[in-house]
Amino acid sequence: MLDRSSRRVALISVGNELLIGKTVNTNHSWLARRLTILGYEVKVGLTVRDICGDIEWAFRTAIELDCGVVISTGGLGPTFDDMTVACMARAFGLPLVKNEEALRMIEEKYSAKGLPLTEHRVKMAMLPEGSRPLPNRVGTAPGMLLEHRGILAIALPGVPAEMKAIFEDHVEPILRERGPHIHIAEKFLRSVGVPESSAAPVIDRAMKVSPRVYVKSHPAGGELTMPVLKIHIQASADSVEEARGIVERAAEVLRTGLIKLGARVEEVSKL
Amino acid sequence: MLDRSSRRVALISVGNELLIGKTVNTNHSWLARRLTILGYEVKVGLTVRDICGDIEWAFRTAIELDCGVVISTGGLGPTFDDMTVACMARAFGLPLVKNEEALRMIEEKYSAKGLPLTEHRVKMAMLPEGSRPLPNRVGTAPGMLLEHRGILAIALPGVPAEMKAIFEDHVEPILRERGPHIHIAEKFLRSVGVPESSAAPVIDRAMKVSPRVYVKSHPAGGELTMPVLKIHIQASADSVEEARGIVERAAEVLRTGLIKLGARVEEVSKL
Repeated sequence: MLDRSSRRVALISVGNELLIGKTVNTNHSWLARRLTILGYEVKVGLTVRDICGDIEWAFRTAIELDCGVVISTGGLGPTFDDMTVACMARAFGLPLVKNEEALRMIEEKYSAKGLPLTEHRVKMAMLPEGSRPLPNRVGTAPGMLLEHRGILAIALPGVPAEMKAIFEDHVEPILRERGPHIHIAEKFLRSVGVPESSAAPVIDRAMKVSPRVYVKSHPAGGELTMPVLKIHIQASADSVEEARGIVERAAEVLRTGLIKLGARVEEVSKL
Repeated sequence: MLDRSSRRVALISVGNELLIGKTVNTNHSWLARRLTILGYEVKVGLTVRDICGDIEWAFRTAIELDCGVVISTGGLGPTFDDMTVACMARAFGLPLVKNEEALRMIEEKYSAKGLPLTEHRVKMAMLPEGSRPLPNRVGTAPGMLLEHRGILAIALPGVPAEMKAIFEDHVEPILRERGPHIHIAEKFLRSVGVPESSAAPVIDRAMKVSPRVYVKSHPAGGELTMPVLKIHIQASADSVEEARGIVERAAEVLRTGLIKLGARVEEVSKL
């Protein structure tokens, strides 16, 4: 069985565009969802600027928080402000070396178009010692994977299509193989007519069904005018049947309790 | 003139839904954009679960990073897992006290609907000593503002409409009054025909026009097949004219350099 920290993930998002509010961070939510389904626990999200000290700080912080998996997005391209890999190397205390495999990947992409290797292109092949490049079938900058001091560190590009392709091709298979053999079940309820503050004690009771169940209510209508609650029940367990059983018990507590308060409760397929 | 740390902001996003990938964090980008326009610098984004130790850690981290402004979203409602304010109080070493003004706000909202004050509703009036509630014209849970040890800490609800209303009604006026008297100008260019890696040295040169200019390129087409670059130039300065002048100089460097490489460059109104 895996220990807790090897399931614990830190997601690092690098890019000024995220901190000046120009870009909504959909990479974070996409990765968080995929990792949750794989049975990993995303502990923290750290969003930092294209400043080497800040990127280094984020990796150090992930290590201090005892995260066994650290995945970054952004800062892998050819420009001066693409510096994630170099600053990650500093956080791990590793030298940056020219990776021949990465260089070959980059050279192939550009030479196919008759473009030479320039200083800015070679930069994308500079990786921390001991790491390996992850082929990028959509773009040019390879991803990077490093195992060091019991930590699996992965750097992915910020362009969503490239990030997703590298994750699905090269990261997910590794995480799936090493990941916990747990199963997740979920259910969605929609309650109409009871404000969230009245539903709160019922939700408390449903959460006590199991330590592995999570019940989250999302107010959708007005708390006072037209109180609609969307309720997400999620459980993880060592078998699908067990996970489904936990969800069913929590749902029953919610249904009974909310109907008693005068709500109309129905199961919905999603929130 | 304000010192640097009083302009530096940490945004804390609280909620398991953000770390299991169920919700995309649009609160973060909305706040980051508004703060940038007001002349503040969002230094870091911290996303944590509904776990008191994690929330406390996020506030402590913001303080350690010397952020003069800390704004959290999420975890202000009536349920057991709404605990942001209590955990923030722990980070600041302040006791939690029943705030009479907050209690009045909450009581008014519920009594207008004939609903009594329950334990879960009173919970929303428990604030760190010395803080004040911020009226919520959209929902029921008040926001909270605390000034302590030179730090302005603000807790806002996670429901976007409530977060925005409290920010615009009560937070923005304070930040505007205290904020730096700087001005921001920006311009967007679209370059077709030159891959990002070829454009990189030109972007380097444009960034050297001023330390207060920021040039960011976003590849939109394929780097090799149909290279389209969207370029965002942003500058801040003590006057609008100065900011515009910096942007214009950087744009000129980009235009000249990219056209020389064979690109078609046009100004666009947004990215």
